[in-house]
Amino acid sequence: MKTSINATRGKPSFEQLALCDEMYNAPLENFIAEDGSDVRNYGGADGIPEMKRIFAEMLGVDTGEVIVGGNSSLNLMFDFVAGMILSGKWDASRAKFICPAPGYDRHFSVCEYFGIKMLRVPMTPNGPDIAATEELARDPDVVGIWCVPIFSNPQGYIYSDETVRRLAKMQATHPHFRIMWDNAYPVHVFSDATPIQAKILQECRDAGDESRPVLFTSFSKISYAGAGVTCMAAAGETSNLIRRRIAMQTIGPDKVNQLRHARYFKNLAGVEAHMKKHAEILRPKFELAKATFTREFVGTGATFTTPRGGYFISVDTPPNCAKRVWQLCKDAGVLMTDPGATFPYGIDPHDTNLRFAPTFLSMDELKQTLEVFCAAMAKVAPPR
Amino acid sequence: MKTSINATRGKPSFEQLALCDEMYNAPLENFIAEDGSDVRNYGGADGIPEMKRIFAEMLGVDTGEVIVGGNSSLNLMFDFVAGMILSGKWDASRAKFICPAPGYDRHFSVCEYFGIKMLRVPMTPNGPDIAATEELARDPDVVGIWCVPIFSNPQGYIYSDETVRRLAKMQATHPHFRIMWDNAYPVHVFSDATPIQAKILQECRDAGDESRPVLFTSFSKISYAGAGVTCMAAAGETSNLIRRRIAMQTIGPDKVNQLRHARYFKNLAGVEAHMKKHAEILRPKFELAKATFTREFVGTGATFTTPRGGYFISVDTPPNCAKRVWQLCKDAGVLMTDPGATFPYGIDPHDTNLRFAPTFLSMDELKQTLEVFCAAMAKVAPPR
Repeated sequence: MKTSINATRGKPSFEQLALCDEMYNAPLENFIAEDGSDVRNYGGADGIPEMKRIFAEMLGVDTGEVIVGGNSSLNLMFDFVAGMILSGKWDASRAKFICPAPGYDRHFSVCEYFGIKMLRVPMTPNGPDIAATEELARDPDVVGIWCVPIFSNPQGYIYSDETVRRLAKMQATHPHFRIMWDNAYPVHVFSDATPIQAKILQECRDAGDESRPVLFTSFSKISYAGAGVTCMAAAGETSNLIRRRIAMQTIGPDKVNQLRHARYFKNLAGVEAHMKKHAEILRPKFELAKATFTREFVGTGATFTTPRGGYFISVDTPPNCAKRVWQLCKDAGVLMTDPGATFPYGIDPHDTNLRFAPTFLSMDELKQTLEVFCAAMAKVAPPR
Repeated sequence: MKTSINATRGKPSFEQLALCDEMYNAPLENFIAEDGSDVRNYGGADGIPEMKRIFAEMLGVDTGEVIVGGNSSLNLMFDFVAGMILSGKWDASRAKFICPAPGYDRHFSVCEYFGIKMLRVPMTPNGPDIAATEELARDPDVVGIWCVPIFSNPQGYIYSDETVRRLAKMQATHPHFRIMWDNAYPVHVFSDATPIQAKILQECRDAGDESRPVLFTSFSKISYAGAGVTCMAAAGETSNLIRRRIAMQTIGPDKVNQLRHARYFKNLAGVEAHMKKHAEILRPKFELAKATFTREFVGTGATFTTPRGGYFISVDTPPNCAKRVWQLCKDAGVLMTDPGATFPYGIDPHDTNLRFAPTFLSMDELKQTLEVFCAAMAKVAPPR
């Protein structure tokens, strides 16, 4: 019988989700936040203090710079872009975005929705090709860049401190150039310690433009993917713009869920302790994939990344092979992320990149998936 | 000692919030929705089936027309307006909105944020002055109208079936004219039965334009104001536009909170049973206000509405008195909703309207507030 496995998305597994059942199911002793506000009622558009504090630690910013959102950080990013266009700061008919690629397909979808032109820059183990990025930022129509600075999607790379600093310092011609700093995986490590990285907001402030970055992070892969808490962090004009919008846009995010999270995790150390439980589940999956690729890719010309955190492995086939590998997997009942998805407009210029997403699969499914995937690779790019 | 009472907003009281503590604090036996999906994980951008079914009953639409959102219906309305502008369907530089007034200040704020010009039409006990509305809808720049069809804010009026039908049938020149149907209080009754009203979506469909209305409702004043569940309902092109946007905008709303709500309330009958508990708390407050106004306003020329549901009473002073009444209350330590807040641009043309919000106050605070308010009224508009 043909197998049927869906390995398309970076979803947490059932075992990971169950780690937080007790948080969602334990009664709250009371509903009063640290500032005395009743989380059950209206008010507090930017979040409760104890939740802001955890996010501030996670992102390396001040609590006053944190704006807590709902359960979807993508929603915060989408709304930020919409706000820049609606306020007239960005002209959607001319705007261009720098898109390090391979990258996260949902970032690219946001640009496509708004008609923002995407300019590809290559990713390196230190982050986006910084010289190419600096060059593109001089274009007066370039309004921003997408970044996943820690455990980049799909490579699992960590931007180097030099990359962070050069992004902060580089000359951008557009007066409202913004760095979309999607720090989705700051604590999502499955070996060793939480990554330490130069702080983008501080670096930008030191370089004279604290309004440049907008930081995002999320509990979607810490607590529940379907019911987490997210935040933005920003300063200066960027913070003002966001706060002015949300004051009109909403009566405020779900504060009960914030209180649940804040009381359960308490602080960054609490989050890190919890992430060790995720690591126990994820490490064997990534190790199995690494061992299998190391063994099976010999001579095929395929390469793969070996992240120590995050949700993905980036696989590069020899040129003009990714689509065929994907198709063979599909024919065998294993659905991988679409080839091209990691590139703007879905166009992988050399047809090489495939995103491997091991997290959601059981170990058995993962073994089958790896077998199918490596067999497909060997068929399309026979070992030489 | 001077009192200090904040009666500005329509917030539920502590007793009302406590009615739902058990829902938020009871463990969920499992996390699997009716369709087999795990609410803890990603997926389900428009909500789980059991939550859609409750909303469909509340709004008188099909479940397939329901799109479940987060905890803020204002957010859904804001995003809808943003979507109409960003998609080019509405031109913000020319667009005008029909604003029945006195009305809800947060609706007017959304228009102001987007630079949409507001056209005032008078409210009547049957809804907006329908002849005036029909006249304005012929203006090719008029793109929509704000409606709170049941227990209107601030009067507590219920639109008549004739009003609903004429809104559905009236000729609108703009090709994307939309009715923003903010059905915030469909079950929020404190005497007799839940109101029955002609169904706007069905009426529009019968009139040949199912894309005309966008319906909204919310659990903010059923469960917790700070952690409810909301929804939109729409059909045709309007539904397509919303769904296309949310597919790019978000990974989906909080589904755990949906499951909590769906399992606790079960169906419309369950919601209505719960609202009877709210009614027990609210009825004495509205009755006290009514009795006090009936007695104290004699000869002042002031009038007031006597709703049987909703969150507000609308008080009209004689011309040029509302600001002075408000100021005297403030001087005495009672803060009421700003005079003018119930009108577009904050401009009450005759300075007569004040929104009275009794819900959040304890009975003692309410007595003090009524005393201060009626004394102020008698001073500014002495009985004759």
